[in-house]
Amino acid sequence: MTFREKLHLVTGSGAVGLCIGLDPDPARLPEGYSPDLQGISSFLTEVISISTPHAAAYKVNTAFYEAWGAEGWALLEKIAHDLPESSLRIADAKRGDIGNTAKRYAHAFLERIPFDAITLNPYMGGDTLQPFLRNPHKGAFVLALTTNPGSKDLQRFSDGKFNLYERVLDMISHWAPQGNLGAVVGATHPDELVKIRRAYPSVPLLIPGIGAQGGDAETVAQIAEDVQGEPLLVNVSRGILYPDNDLDFQESIESACLDYKKQLKING
Amino acid sequence: MTFREKLHLVTGSGAVGLCIGLDPDPARLPEGYSPDLQGISSFLTEVISISTPHAAAYKVNTAFYEAWGAEGWALLEKIAHDLPESSLRIADAKRGDIGNTAKRYAHAFLERIPFDAITLNPYMGGDTLQPFLRNPHKGAFVLALTTNPGSKDLQRFSDGKFNLYERVLDMISHWAPQGNLGAVVGATHPDELVKIRRAYPSVPLLIPGIGAQGGDAETVAQIAEDVQGEPLLVNVSRGILYPDNDLDFQESIESACLDYKKQLKING
Repeated sequence: MTFREKLHLVTGSGAVGLCIGLDPDPARLPEGYSPDLQGISSFLTEVISISTPHAAAYKVNTAFYEAWGAEGWALLEKIAHDLPESSLRIADAKRGDIGNTAKRYAHAFLERIPFDAITLNPYMGGDTLQPFLRNPHKGAFVLALTTNPGSKDLQRFSDGKFNLYERVLDMISHWAPQGNLGAVVGATHPDELVKIRRAYPSVPLLIPGIGAQGGDAETVAQIAEDVQGEPLLVNVSRGILYPDNDLDFQESIESACLDYKKQLKING
Repeated sequence: MTFREKLHLVTGSGAVGLCIGLDPDPARLPEGYSPDLQGISSFLTEVISISTPHAAAYKVNTAFYEAWGAEGWALLEKIAHDLPESSLRIADAKRGDIGNTAKRYAHAFLERIPFDAITLNPYMGGDTLQPFLRNPHKGAFVLALTTNPGSKDLQRFSDGKFNLYERVLDMISHWAPQGNLGAVVGATHPDELVKIRRAYPSVPLLIPGIGAQGGDAETVAQIAEDVQGEPLLVNVSRGILYPDNDLDFQESIESACLDYKKQLKING
């Protein structure tokens, strides 16, 4: 199954899929889990088990594992293997480097570890993205317009006509004849998200920023309804892992998944 | 000792220091070393031992270790600990992510592993660099103008007056009152290197691209002589690890170090 086929499969007949970000914070584990790698591992196993019926995709941010050294990397590998094959498994690694180095990263994340996709940083240019696109069964999401305040510093640098992030989207839309290259656009920029969706309907989007970062799920659902195009994966990390309510944590995660699916108008 | 003090110490009284890139390619190890992690580990130990008198800095590219999974990460940690404290130890990680994630990367590379500095990707903006700059004993080198052909794709995107890479250098020069933020500028762009050196003398530069990538060491030495400023670290990876001659490999590495120091006009 190609990356594009899998992306369509995991989002079903709809335009939107829920992506769950597995960024474990030892200080926020539920009661009964030790604030160490063992506790994190058990917690994530439980999260995956509860959320599997709801998750179109999972996104694993490498920083939260590298912070634990070699043992953290071993957990990253274990989690990647534990993720259901029925989901799109994304390494949120934000890598980007020259050709011979990029090949090593592609090997690390898309061959050695069975991720379906990786997030990439476009700053170094097109040749640094190519090594990740050669296999149509694997894909990448390239940073375009990110959720953080600093996204204005360079991403909105303009030549008078276009912003840098639009230049990135142009590159993306021209470079993936096999449909295995998407873009990361934050839900915290709803106006730009509509424009991007209209201008680049053939580019699948990974949309972070819902929940803790302030983006609004219903707005994204409305955009998906109004403008047709390739699937949108909407990521929620902290909003699902650490929901703010009085339920026990298993019920709480299940309830958060259902709630986000409702806001995103995802059936089933 | 602050990062800035250490940078000045390792480059001695001169403006230029030799940085050795430890990017191990199992296919290019000398005879007698097995093309696996054990062979790589023994080879790098030997390289460090031979090159210590000549290296102002070492740069370890994370891709070449991550490609081996958790055991590769363990070797990355071992090598970082084995590097002489008298050198500036750089994690060439090219990371860049939002605040809470950037903190985890800063912990991974500058606290948990004793690197003195890390390379960063500026695409996501200023707030993503800040977590790496809080400790004046640690520093970062931010990608500005890279060696690869694709560097033209975004880095030379222009507002009519300035290129994106100049915008990055502006940010860098304004944001490091403690002198712990430098820039990466490739030796493959000698004209721009002169201009950057003139415009931003207070920004230390990490300069890759000498040797295998086609940059010229004597040109960089001339620029350092012509324009005063903070130290320049000139990186050579493949040109020192795998020199192309008939000597046995230890003599060959020693000879390559001496040769590059001569071209760079580094005394001692």
